[in-house]
Amino acid sequence: MAAQAGVSMGTVSHYLNHPSRVSAEKAGRIQAAIDNLGFVRNNAGRQLRLGRSTTMAYIVPDVSNPFFATIAEGVEQRASEAGLSVFLANSGGKRAREDSYLELFQEHGVLGILVASPEPIEDRLAAIKSRGTPSVLVGQLAASPAQPSVSIDDVSGGYLAARHLIEIGCRRLAFVGGPLSIRQVADRLQGASRAVREAGSATLEIIDVEPRVIAVGHKVGAEIAGRPEANRPDGVFTVNDMLGIGLVQTLVTSGVRVPEEIAVIGYDDIEYAENSLVPLSSIRPPHQEFGIAAVDLMLVMVEEKESDLHRVFAPELVVRRSAER
Amino acid sequence: MAAQAGVSMGTVSHYLNHPSRVSAEKAGRIQAAIDNLGFVRNNAGRQLRLGRSTTMAYIVPDVSNPFFATIAEGVEQRASEAGLSVFLANSGGKRAREDSYLELFQEHGVLGILVASPEPIEDRLAAIKSRGTPSVLVGQLAASPAQPSVSIDDVSGGYLAARHLIEIGCRRLAFVGGPLSIRQVADRLQGASRAVREAGSATLEIIDVEPRVIAVGHKVGAEIAGRPEANRPDGVFTVNDMLGIGLVQTLVTSGVRVPEEIAVIGYDDIEYAENSLVPLSSIRPPHQEFGIAAVDLMLVMVEEKESDLHRVFAPELVVRRSAER
Repeated sequence: MAAQAGVSMGTVSHYLNHPSRVSAEKAGRIQAAIDNLGFVRNNAGRQLRLGRSTTMAYIVPDVSNPFFATIAEGVEQRASEAGLSVFLANSGGKRAREDSYLELFQEHGVLGILVASPEPIEDRLAAIKSRGTPSVLVGQLAASPAQPSVSIDDVSGGYLAARHLIEIGCRRLAFVGGPLSIRQVADRLQGASRAVREAGSATLEIIDVEPRVIAVGHKVGAEIAGRPEANRPDGVFTVNDMLGIGLVQTLVTSGVRVPEEIAVIGYDDIEYAENSLVPLSSIRPPHQEFGIAAVDLMLVMVEEKESDLHRVFAPELVVRRSAER
Repeated sequence: MAAQAGVSMGTVSHYLNHPSRVSAEKAGRIQAAIDNLGFVRNNAGRQLRLGRSTTMAYIVPDVSNPFFATIAEGVEQRASEAGLSVFLANSGGKRAREDSYLELFQEHGVLGILVASPEPIEDRLAAIKSRGTPSVLVGQLAASPAQPSVSIDDVSGGYLAARHLIEIGCRRLAFVGGPLSIRQVADRLQGASRAVREAGSATLEIIDVEPRVIAVGHKVGAEIAGRPEANRPDGVFTVNDMLGIGLVQTLVTSGVRVPEEIAVIGYDDIEYAENSLVPLSSIRPPHQEFGIAAVDLMLVMVEEKESDLHRVFAPELVVRRSAER
């Protein structure tokens, strides 16, 4: 290749590893030779040469939840600043698929893995770390001090949501979402439950449903609208915005007034919340900052620096018409 | 490893390549030995052994558009049936990032690449093919007969949208979206333009904006609501649903009645369209079938079978309240 481009081997190597340090004219000749020879860089060799990988991975359970896309933007931004490319993978919330991606990313020698998972996963991540690949748990506080994680204080988020419903006069609250085996779901319910307990006079019904998607929100809305009025909740907290968007749509088209008869508040503050039939109140976690923090923690692990390995963000309440009285 | 697990080398190899054919008891012992020895499968070696890669890639320009997530589900489903894992990558619509992912996926030896791109890309895909990696262009009909593609008949989609607006009585139509350098945008406008031409008495204004996101829809809505009534369009076709959702929200909150004063129709029929402030009419492309077809075409390329390399899907009109009169 060096011969065909009419440059030294050193210049070719320089071009491959630091393209900006080679003159445009030489770079053009080398690239032409590369194209001409049909050369594809061998990644394994390149990693050995550079001493570390230029890729990282991010495994998510549900690529169709827009909250994931918002975090992914922060991940891409910080990764790009660090000279890294990001392989995304969608586990679909399935343990077997998640395992297969964890395995695959190790085989491909990624620098580190970010993973959001509805499954118990810390033991598996510890095993992966012992074989050389660090990871950051995304969206859930790690139980182990050695496992880095970025999470939201979901207990506080659930508390904010239910307390707001109580403050605007709701007394028969309902929590919509499941399964409770998912830490984030259980934490949000725990916070809501605390607010109800503090209020004294309020009650909390649990409507345990999954998956947490718009279509399920429609189903719950139809069920509630079908009850005798006295048996309906007057304030509903859905564990995410997709459930809330579906719920509001079906309640309103079934003739139930939102927020007058039933106030509704969601969680995640996705872009579609404020544009739904009745603009949805929500609990707003950090968006891009969350992905940025996850990449930073991963780099800390790679560089084996001293650091606090757990970042917990506080969410805030966003009140829109669905819960205004 | 075989020694530690107390099984033959052949059984270990069997377990690695066809885990389901090894007894649960032996599999447990081999996995324990693997964990114990900190063994990470070497992907390059494995590919040589199996003769082909077990991964494929899917590059998208905008991970935050829910239409992408819907296609990704079809891709995952068919890939999984074919025993493949899918690496997703978000190019952000940026040429440099797209090139870097194309390069990276070749280096990692993927079986094939699906790519949705707003940039001219067929020359680059041909070069990649000549080096051994086939690709399928997603969302756009390839100009080259040799380049496989799955696309929607966007001219027909644009025609359906504008003709519907004209049929319900709109005469001052507006098309919102850009840039026209993107094939899909230009095609949708071309179809709309044909419907307006056929109608004779109607006019078509172009409001050229990008990016095609909710926030830009809000901006266009404010601009239109700010005009004297006689200068407002009475029917708007937005080039995607995100623009349409933002537009409807701002028109309504500015006191413009939708659909009575301005009817609105979007494109893509994302889940959030029917749940927006005024349920949004839209043009529905195939959803999961689209991703399935893309993977199938990629496998046809890998197996070098004879096939028609271009699949063009017909979209359909979905009328909801935003364009009912």
